[in-house]
Amino acid sequence: MKKSLTLSLLMLSAASFAQQKPLIGFTPASSAKQVTAEKTYDAALSAQRIGETIKTLSAYPHNLGSPGSKAVADKILAMYKSYGLDAHIETYTVLFPTPKTRVLELTGPIAYTALLKEQALAEDGTSAQANQLPTYNAWSADGDVSGQLVFVNYGLPDDYIKLAAMGIDVKGKIVIAKYGRSWRGIKPKVAYEHGAIGCIIYSDPADDGYTAGDVYPKGAYKNEFGVQRGSVMDMVLYPGDPLTPGVGATKDAKRLNKEDATTILKIPVLPISYHDAQPLLAALDGPVAPEGWAGSLPITYHVGGGKALVHLKLAFNWDMVPAYNVVAKIKGSAYPDEWVMRGNHHDAWVNGANDPISGQAAMLEEARALGELLKTGWKPKRSIVYCSWDGEEPGLIGSTEYAEAHDKELQQKTVVYINSDSNARGFLGAGGSQALESFIDEVTQGVTDPQTKVSVFDRKKAMQLVNASSTSDKKEILERKGQKLEALGSGSDFSSFLQHLGITTLDLGFGGEDGGGEYHSIYDSFDDYRRFKDPDFAYGVALAQTAGHSVLRMANAEVLPFDFRSLQTTISKYATELSKLADDTRETTKMDNQFVAANYYSIAADPTRQYKAPAAKDTVPAIDFKPLTVALDSLKKSADKLAVYWSAAVLKDGDHDKLNKLLYQAEQQLLTADGLPRRGWYKHTIYAPGFYTGYGVKTLPGIREALEQRNWAEARQQIAVVSGRINALAAYLGYGAK
Amino acid sequence: MKKSLTLSLLMLSAASFAQQKPLIGFTPASSAKQVTAEKTYDAALSAQRIGETIKTLSAYPHNLGSPGSKAVADKILAMYKSYGLDAHIETYTVLFPTPKTRVLELTGPIAYTALLKEQALAEDGTSAQANQLPTYNAWSADGDVSGQLVFVNYGLPDDYIKLAAMGIDVKGKIVIAKYGRSWRGIKPKVAYEHGAIGCIIYSDPADDGYTAGDVYPKGAYKNEFGVQRGSVMDMVLYPGDPLTPGVGATKDAKRLNKEDATTILKIPVLPISYHDAQPLLAALDGPVAPEGWAGSLPITYHVGGGKALVHLKLAFNWDMVPAYNVVAKIKGSAYPDEWVMRGNHHDAWVNGANDPISGQAAMLEEARALGELLKTGWKPKRSIVYCSWDGEEPGLIGSTEYAEAHDKELQQKTVVYINSDSNARGFLGAGGSQALESFIDEVTQGVTDPQTKVSVFDRKKAMQLVNASSTSDKKEILERKGQKLEALGSGSDFSSFLQHLGITTLDLGFGGEDGGGEYHSIYDSFDDYRRFKDPDFAYGVALAQTAGHSVLRMANAEVLPFDFRSLQTTISKYATELSKLADDTRETTKMDNQFVAANYYSIAADPTRQYKAPAAKDTVPAIDFKPLTVALDSLKKSADKLAVYWSAAVLKDGDHDKLNKLLYQAEQQLLTADGLPRRGWYKHTIYAPGFYTGYGVKTLPGIREALEQRNWAEARQQIAVVSGRINALAAYLGYGAK
Repeated sequence: MKKSLTLSLLMLSAASFAQQKPLIGFTPASSAKQVTAEKTYDAALSAQRIGETIKTLSAYPHNLGSPGSKAVADKILAMYKSYGLDAHIETYTVLFPTPKTRVLELTGPIAYTALLKEQALAEDGTSAQANQLPTYNAWSADGDVSGQLVFVNYGLPDDYIKLAAMGIDVKGKIVIAKYGRSWRGIKPKVAYEHGAIGCIIYSDPADDGYTAGDVYPKGAYKNEFGVQRGSVMDMVLYPGDPLTPGVGATKDAKRLNKEDATTILKIPVLPISYHDAQPLLAALDGPVAPEGWAGSLPITYHVGGGKALVHLKLAFNWDMVPAYNVVAKIKGSAYPDEWVMRGNHHDAWVNGANDPISGQAAMLEEARALGELLKTGWKPKRSIVYCSWDGEEPGLIGSTEYAEAHDKELQQKTVVYINSDSNARGFLGAGGSQALESFIDEVTQGVTDPQTKVSVFDRKKAMQLVNASSTSDKKEILERKGQKLEALGSGSDFSSFLQHLGITTLDLGFGGEDGGGEYHSIYDSFDDYRRFKDPDFAYGVALAQTAGHSVLRMANAEVLPFDFRSLQTTISKYATELSKLADDTRETTKMDNQFVAANYYSIAADPTRQYKAPAAKDTVPAIDFKPLTVALDSLKKSADKLAVYWSAAVLKDGDHDKLNKLLYQAEQQLLTADGLPRRGWYKHTIYAPGFYTGYGVKTLPGIREALEQRNWAEARQQIAVVSGRINALAAYLGYGAK
Repeated sequence: MKKSLTLSLLMLSAASFAQQKPLIGFTPASSAKQVTAEKTYDAALSAQRIGETIKTLSAYPHNLGSPGSKAVADKILAMYKSYGLDAHIETYTVLFPTPKTRVLELTGPIAYTALLKEQALAEDGTSAQANQLPTYNAWSADGDVSGQLVFVNYGLPDDYIKLAAMGIDVKGKIVIAKYGRSWRGIKPKVAYEHGAIGCIIYSDPADDGYTAGDVYPKGAYKNEFGVQRGSVMDMVLYPGDPLTPGVGATKDAKRLNKEDATTILKIPVLPISYHDAQPLLAALDGPVAPEGWAGSLPITYHVGGGKALVHLKLAFNWDMVPAYNVVAKIKGSAYPDEWVMRGNHHDAWVNGANDPISGQAAMLEEARALGELLKTGWKPKRSIVYCSWDGEEPGLIGSTEYAEAHDKELQQKTVVYINSDSNARGFLGAGGSQALESFIDEVTQGVTDPQTKVSVFDRKKAMQLVNASSTSDKKEILERKGQKLEALGSGSDFSSFLQHLGITTLDLGFGGEDGGGEYHSIYDSFDDYRRFKDPDFAYGVALAQTAGHSVLRMANAEVLPFDFRSLQTTISKYATELSKLADDTRETTKMDNQFVAANYYSIAADPTRQYKAPAAKDTVPAIDFKPLTVALDSLKKSADKLAVYWSAAVLKDGDHDKLNKLLYQAEQQLLTADGLPRRGWYKHTIYAPGFYTGYGVKTLPGIREALEQRNWAEARQQIAVVSGRINALAAYLGYGAK
């Protein structure tokens, strides 16, 4: 009896100890209160209500500038208000093109007129609605062009190298590229750089159609008529309204002429279905497409450039439209001028049940549960700001204009910006500032995966382990204590906060078990969502918990949960990659030039095919990465020292406001005033969307892209710039630790 | 004047020196004579005549047992005789099944009856001929089966692991597998091992159809009606007549009952076109096929095992037929009992312009040119034996029965067996005993590539460099002095010579620029060959030069050009691979078992799909490779010593017959009397066709396959066996160097 009692006491005490291990940045006392508040918060979340919100907000088309968008913004405003938040709509006035004329015809050797129309389906209740935006790419140029058609695979720079080797160029021709492997806007941009006069983009069934899986409505993948709409704005120069780079698009903002807006494409671009693509591709002559280029249409893919002729005529309404950002605040009790920000866009290409309403609905449920929490008397120490952005789809417009309009205030006040977007069944995707890695590990260890009942952290770890391709990768993941935060490129509303303003950022969302082809089509509907994305809306709750706990902890931490040691480790890895990239490029260049000199390329080539061997390349000079290494050593010292200081601080009662401000503004040290070469809007020296990848991130972008573009002088200059910013951060953090 | 004269003399002398550098195994004097003889030989070769021979011998169907085969054998006999060779036909009597009944029907959920018929084409002059063998797989069982249909990807062991993870088995069902990734016979064998009652094999257009390239007759790839015939004999047990393993199938040889012949399949198997496969695959339900399984038919590939039902009825004429090997000799002047053997089969599935007539025609041109050389008074020191084999297609039958019937004599007399088969435009493929690497390098450096005018050696090097995937691979190829001889598996007539008798072997043939789908179809015709394979028959001459020079040098070398140092290096690489394989298997097993214990597989799996996590595996014990390392060290010493002895010998005049016999019989030391586990016919310890790859080689097969099958005791036992044979070779060579 006694023994068993002792055992129970021991167990109880172990449990209490585990419970009482304070949350990062909290004292034992404040941590206990926080845990209680989060339980109340969790209890208020409802999957069913998330489902209802998704249904309501995706009931009608609601693209930027449409009556539907205004209606959705008004609904969201009312919801925030009903939850007890202080909400208003901030309106910007922005350029937005919608189609007036869309003609695509094959004119030779046979005639075919493209349908350019998705089909309404009985199984999809909203697919027959009026007011759907036609299938198009926003920011295409107006144009009426005719020319030979050339198939360019995914339309990336390497594809044009292959074409050149085959003796094919696209000057004065119209290209057709497959969707995939890059952000869509890269394809017409690269086509234009190579002299093309028009660009067609289609979804191949190998990537997004019958080969990927059963097609809609039987399954989730693209049927032959499905089309991916989307922006082709040259967003890697700057996102947002093309007429107001760097400033908010307020009513009377100074605007560029449309002709001077560098982010608007110079050639007409049109997305089409594989139903429309097949006759065009089948008409191509010329060489058979290189290995790996063919999709799964039942034809032989040729490169073209011969008898297949295409006429593409596009004209747009270049309207100024209102963008309605809904902003809702809960004022902080202790530090009202420190803002924990949370955002998700509300505009869609059509109905957008998944993109963006699934994330929007989860976020609104967060706000509602916070409202419930407020009713219990709970108060956040810091202010919490919920943002439902408009105009994300055409180019992150609502969030960018807001960030540009409020830049100084946001840099001063924003503790963290937490973004979400589409959300569905699967695994947590998490990206952002690596100073928050331990923080987000703690959050995800505390959220249960709805399907497996293990933590979201553990489920992701299992997936990463099972999918890791090599034993050494598996080992690394097994041994790693926490999980990596992915570096952020572009593609959602975090871009301005992180890359323009240097605000610490998180991007969160579940997915990976929601494969399908509804993206940016009329089939991104509630009917599709509840069948294929998150049938019981449980991952809506998982997102509301993950992001909500993040918001709650950031709002109430005694000392903010930043740890720059993980940032330093991550940047060091990037630096090592780049040094290796320079060495590898040097070695492969030497090798390639040897091959060119020995004529190996021509000797190996099939003489019956047209072939142009590559020319010798400039040799890669020595590039000194020492300044970067030295700066990173210095950052390591500061980060280590600060971590010690931080740990001591969290044990002390009192106001840590000075330390907290220093922590949350630290990322701004990594901004460079001049911005990246040729795209000064992007000021972060560690993360940027790739100039030739779009959404895909380039880390240490100034150096990396200089190396990739073989601009050795710029690589050296950028090493100096980046080292300077890392040194500045080291000094800044060192000062904080004093 | 004087200076320039000196220079001319110097140049002349350099040229003479280069010319006079003696061929490997020749004295300066005999080398000069040899070079002259080879020039005479080369001058006698005619591309036009090779083309004519291809046209003549592929004019009608001539499969084993057909009147066409007898006609071709008689033609070849007459040709050899007309060239002045002492030729005769050696006939064996062998089992050969041809189709009597072929029915394949989809019986549910809808009905479809497969056509099982290739179409005659106006563009292909022989495609409408009578007496074509129908599309079938020889050695399929007779059978009349009905059952659910299951798609098993390429039908390899790993595919069944994936099916099991999806909760799908094939017991009592009929499988449909894609051609490719293994020898075809592996697919029904593995299906049978998993309990399937029937097997259908089809060519997917992704691998061999419109996705690979334009289809016949526009291009070379398989049109929708094309079918690959072929043997599914379980040749990895033993090749040749199933009724006479190990002995020649002479008229009165002791024969097994057909029921006891283990190489005849136990289930019905049928190859079909993608036209016939599409309705079957489209009817499948069940889960969508795993990633990477789908081909490029315009359907979603499902795994099936549900409502799709198939009826397969096959019956065969199990006839005893004559196999006509044509054997032609030139008697050696000095060593008539040392034979340089050369072989290529003459039987085809249908017309076989490429397979095998392209190689046969080049070989006949060799024999003709040798005949011309004989007329000049030139004589080979050793005998030269040309063999035109029958019955290769159904299972290497002609060559195997010959090798089995003459086993002791061949082991005693054969210096080298040089094989060829299909031949076309491109790069030299060369495989065989690695003791001949320097020899074949010298040969290929002396043959000009018809298209690029560099040597065949250099063209291959350029191709390998350009195609190498990593910088380190490129470096290795650049730095390597010679070229590797590929290890030989199976798939042509060298198998018995090398793997059963331990005769030093070479397999030579050009290709790689002749892509297409004519293989084993009615479209392997002269019309196809001259359009897509080797339009001017120049690679027929290149093969006649490469194989012919090899024959000539082997026939007349003073000291035979064997160098066992390269064999030792090669075997050492295999040994290192196996030691690494054991270590890697140990590590991944440990890791996998950790995953199983932690339930990672189940946690990572999509709970909406049926999934069965793998079970824990037995741990991999320590396996001692030391005996192998020690044996290889010993072989290195012997080979080094012998190389010194060899170099001294070649400088001495006189009879080197004792050394030569030792050299050419050395490979037999690597045979093990018991043969490989469970397939004692295969006696070579270094090379064998893979038990689960078929044509694909497994090197150090006893050890490697034991490791792959997790049979640790057998791996250890086989290390002892292999080490024993390597030690024996080391002792044998060491004796020779005394």
